[in-house]
Amino acid sequence: MLMKTSIDLNSDMGEGFGPWQIGDGVDEEIMPLISSANIATGFHAGDPNIMRRMVELAHQHGVGVGAHPGFRDLVGFGRRPIKASVDELVNDFIYQTGALREFTRLNGSTLRHVKPHGALYMHVAQDEALSTALVDAVLKIDPQLYLYCMASSVTWRVATQRGLRVVREFYADRDYDLSGSIVFTRRVGALDPQAVAAKVLRACREGTVQTVEGESMAIEFDSVCIHSDTPGALALIQTTRDTLLANGIALAAHSA
Amino acid sequence: MLMKTSIDLNSDMGEGFGPWQIGDGVDEEIMPLISSANIATGFHAGDPNIMRRMVELAHQHGVGVGAHPGFRDLVGFGRRPIKASVDELVNDFIYQTGALREFTRLNGSTLRHVKPHGALYMHVAQDEALSTALVDAVLKIDPQLYLYCMASSVTWRVATQRGLRVVREFYADRDYDLSGSIVFTRRVGALDPQAVAAKVLRACREGTVQTVEGESMAIEFDSVCIHSDTPGALALIQTTRDTLLANGIALAAHSA
Amino acid sequence: MLMKTSIDLNSDMGEGFGPWQIGDGVDEEIMPLISSANIATGFHAGDPNIMRRMVELAHQHGVGVGAHPGFRDLVGFGRRPIKASVDELVNDFIYQTGALREFTRLNGSTLRHVKPHGALYMHVAQDEALSTALVDAVLKIDPQLYLYCMASSVTWRVATQRGLRVVREFYADRDYDLSGSIVFTRRVGALDPQAVAAKVLRACREGTVQTVEGESMAIEFDSVCIHSDTPGALALIQTTRDTLLANGIALAAHSA
Amino acid sequence: MLMKTSIDLNSDMGEGFGPWQIGDGVDEEIMPLISSANIATGFHAGDPNIMRRMVELAHQHGVGVGAHPGFRDLVGFGRRPIKASVDELVNDFIYQTGALREFTRLNGSTLRHVKPHGALYMHVAQDEALSTALVDAVLKIDPQLYLYCMASSVTWRVATQRGLRVVREFYADRDYDLSGSIVFTRRVGALDPQAVAAKVLRACREGTVQTVEGESMAIEFDSVCIHSDTPGALALIQTTRDTLLANGIALAAHSA
Repeated sequence: MLMKTSIDLNSDMGEGFGPWQIGDGVDEEIMPLISSANIATGFHAGDPNIMRRMVELAHQHGVGVGAHPGFRDLVGFGRRPIKASVDELVNDFIYQTGALREFTRLNGSTLRHVKPHGALYMHVAQDEALSTALVDAVLKIDPQLYLYCMASSVTWRVATQRGLRVVREFYADRDYDLSGSIVFTRRVGALDPQAVAAKVLRACREGTVQTVEGESMAIEFDSVCIHSDTPGALALIQTTRDTLLANGIALAAHSA
Repeated sequence: MLMKTSIDLNSDMGEGFGPWQIGDGVDEEIMPLISSANIATGFHAGDPNIMRRMVELAHQHGVGVGAHPGFRDLVGFGRRPIKASVDELVNDFIYQTGALREFTRLNGSTLRHVKPHGALYMHVAQDEALSTALVDAVLKIDPQLYLYCMASSVTWRVATQRGLRVVREFYADRDYDLSGSIVFTRRVGALDPQAVAAKVLRACREGTVQTVEGESMAIEFDSVCIHSDTPGALALIQTTRDTLLANGIALAAHSA
Repeated sequence: MLMKTSIDLNSDMGEGFGPWQIGDGVDEEIMPLISSANIATGFHAGDPNIMRRMVELAHQHGVGVGAHPGFRDLVGFGRRPIKASVDELVNDFIYQTGALREFTRLNGSTLRHVKPHGALYMHVAQDEALSTALVDAVLKIDPQLYLYCMASSVTWRVATQRGLRVVREFYADRDYDLSGSIVFTRRVGALDPQAVAAKVLRACREGTVQTVEGESMAIEFDSVCIHSDTPGALALIQTTRDTLLANGIALAAHSA
Repeated sequence: MLMKTSIDLNSDMGEGFGPWQIGDGVDEEIMPLISSANIATGFHAGDPNIMRRMVELAHQHGVGVGAHPGFRDLVGFGRRPIKASVDELVNDFIYQTGALREFTRLNGSTLRHVKPHGALYMHVAQDEALSTALVDAVLKIDPQLYLYCMASSVTWRVATQRGLRVVREFYADRDYDLSGSIVFTRRVGALDPQAVAAKVLRACREGTVQTVEGESMAIEFDSVCIHSDTPGALALIQTTRDTLLANGIALAAHSA
């Protein structure tokens, strides 16, 4: 992999609902620091008022707008798999994507990408039938949309085969093992911003990440994801951004 | 008013949710008989699976597709006013409209109109601030959209002033009083299809309706509405359609 | 097994929501024919108005009232498993059971049993940890409650071991295979009331059922379940009831 | 009014939902400081997991448990009036109250009071028919329950006439005008804990409050309410508690 001179930095935005906000409640401060925003679309988080505000905020800061649909499970925040049919999940995806897209029409911006949320993201990543149906649906509603997914996932393979533009993600706030899988650890403390920034810088420069086993592993990615509900997310994102810029790596939504 | 040679016949479609369907559950049979479908968009009725099926069905029968957003009140079927702010209601409207519109993109059709549902329809009809905000929002998301409303309502006046295309409705399954208001009566039995058809024919030919006071009143309208959840709706719609056609009045979505 | 001289006949009641009703919408007609009612408690179906009406109706006809809690999945009618933790499912169960129980307090009746609905019923039937937690929770909130379950299920074993009163069900409107499992078939037509009644009568008299493989299999049960959303449910229940009574078998809620 | 030697201090608890918490997220720290907890019951906030935790926490600290039912409006946090019928609102109230009460059965405690939330509290306070229906329903489900309400409200009058035990509230974090009404002001900064504590102390000692017009007004109350979602709520409650105790006024749930 060549050293990157520009990289996309994406984060989940608008993950509140009604009176509630997620994490540290700093979406307004994070938005100017990222290049792509995955905006929650109402089924697991997000409501029309929040969605509108997020779309306007993204537009104002030149941030690429993405729909971030999840399982219809507000109380579970879209993190609990629901055994639904492929058709049901595709229709839920279309519904939520359209809901968000209409807010981009309202303020004259455009929808740039889609990214399934939480348990739906993990489910589609491993499911051939769902990946195929989802990719085909996205191609129909808008062949210009980018689909965010994990590198080497079924989704990535299917999307690539069928001609949908994909953005492979690198999870800066998660650990990897040698299989390339994300390791979900229950951390004791907050992540160190400098360490996260250094990890991202190395990934951008060398195309490698140190696994939990201690070895260096090659990774392919088009975007860095830092979750806005990770404790201390604002500092992680700010430091990562500063470090990248200081090292000559620009932040910009992926284009291909 | 000149005698009409063509009129729009609209009905609310897809007012089920999950395992439930509304009224006689005859949407599939009603769809081929009408020229415009107001499709429920999920907040008071309708779910993504039903919405997709309705959009496909409408497309198949050449029926104009409209979004039919309501208050976020599933248990109350959108018939109970919620004291929400103008911004909240506009954002709910945009969300729901976009959700439905995406299904038209999926099958290559287009969204033709919007029509608020139930208590929202009645509320916006009388509220200047909400009518203005809603009309302006619709003009921004798509100036080609038609807005269905009551003749002489605040919505109609505001939309006309601001240049949004409106479709004034005549309610074939409701009674009118001399003020031009709809009279909500709790009927003992089902409506007589012949009587409803005759009422519509007279309205189309003479531009008049007989009020509950017994007098003839002039009415202006661009579309006839027969609610699909009125008991015996299928017969009402079928007979009305047959009567109009037999009298040389075509059925077609309004255009202006 | 001895021939039964009395048997419980249970059915799911109140499976509507807001403006919607399930199946043929004949709960009012079914209620007088059964001895136990499993009343939907709001998460997969049922709303407070329906619940109150059903509790009153049951009381009026001397029918045993049961809470019928399901997954929090209205659009999926509680038929789609959600991968939730044991604690979440127990808490959902307690919440829904209490909601229904309060309506029995309101009209001076009492809650007699609990029965998980749909996918939750099937899930708990096979899950030791959930069965244990649920049984222990029921014992704490009310050791007099009966728990409806499948004969030979994990739930049945756990409940029996821990001293909770159980009611084993025989599904009159489902087929069994030799393993004792229910066979979910997609039927072409409606069930024949006479055949269903004969099946129940044989089960009550001989303690056997004919499996889909064609053999006779012994079954143990304390209650016959006929689902109210099975097409033609009213006729099935009426004929079954008539047949049992004509053969000297009384209908009464199980007591032990 | 005689100087109080003991007063109830109540606060709304458990006003989160799924992944979200309200205000400063300090319910665990507030609970030990109050004598009565109004626990959200799921329609405007609160979910079964939170409700269970709150009931256990209250029990552990000897805090009186109350159900805090609201309008079915999660996105609006129960602050937007819904034009529902008296029956609908009473049934929603029963449902939610029962749901919470079951958690008290689960841990061996008891439900002590009920208090409508937000817009429902204000609505019932002025509505004779709803107050009457609600009071009668509470008397039926449990004549030992206390109903929290505003002094001089319709609810208070109706409850007193019909023999339901009432607890009149004094809002320490709200201003009063000479009519005795609460003044909803949009404050610039946070409330001063010392000022709030002094206000409560004066009310307990002298039975008076200084109105926004600057005059002293007599007030009757049985409980002091400090909202947990008021910014800085923990400090307000801690300081008020400390001040009362330092001045020989004990904190205890009201009994009469």
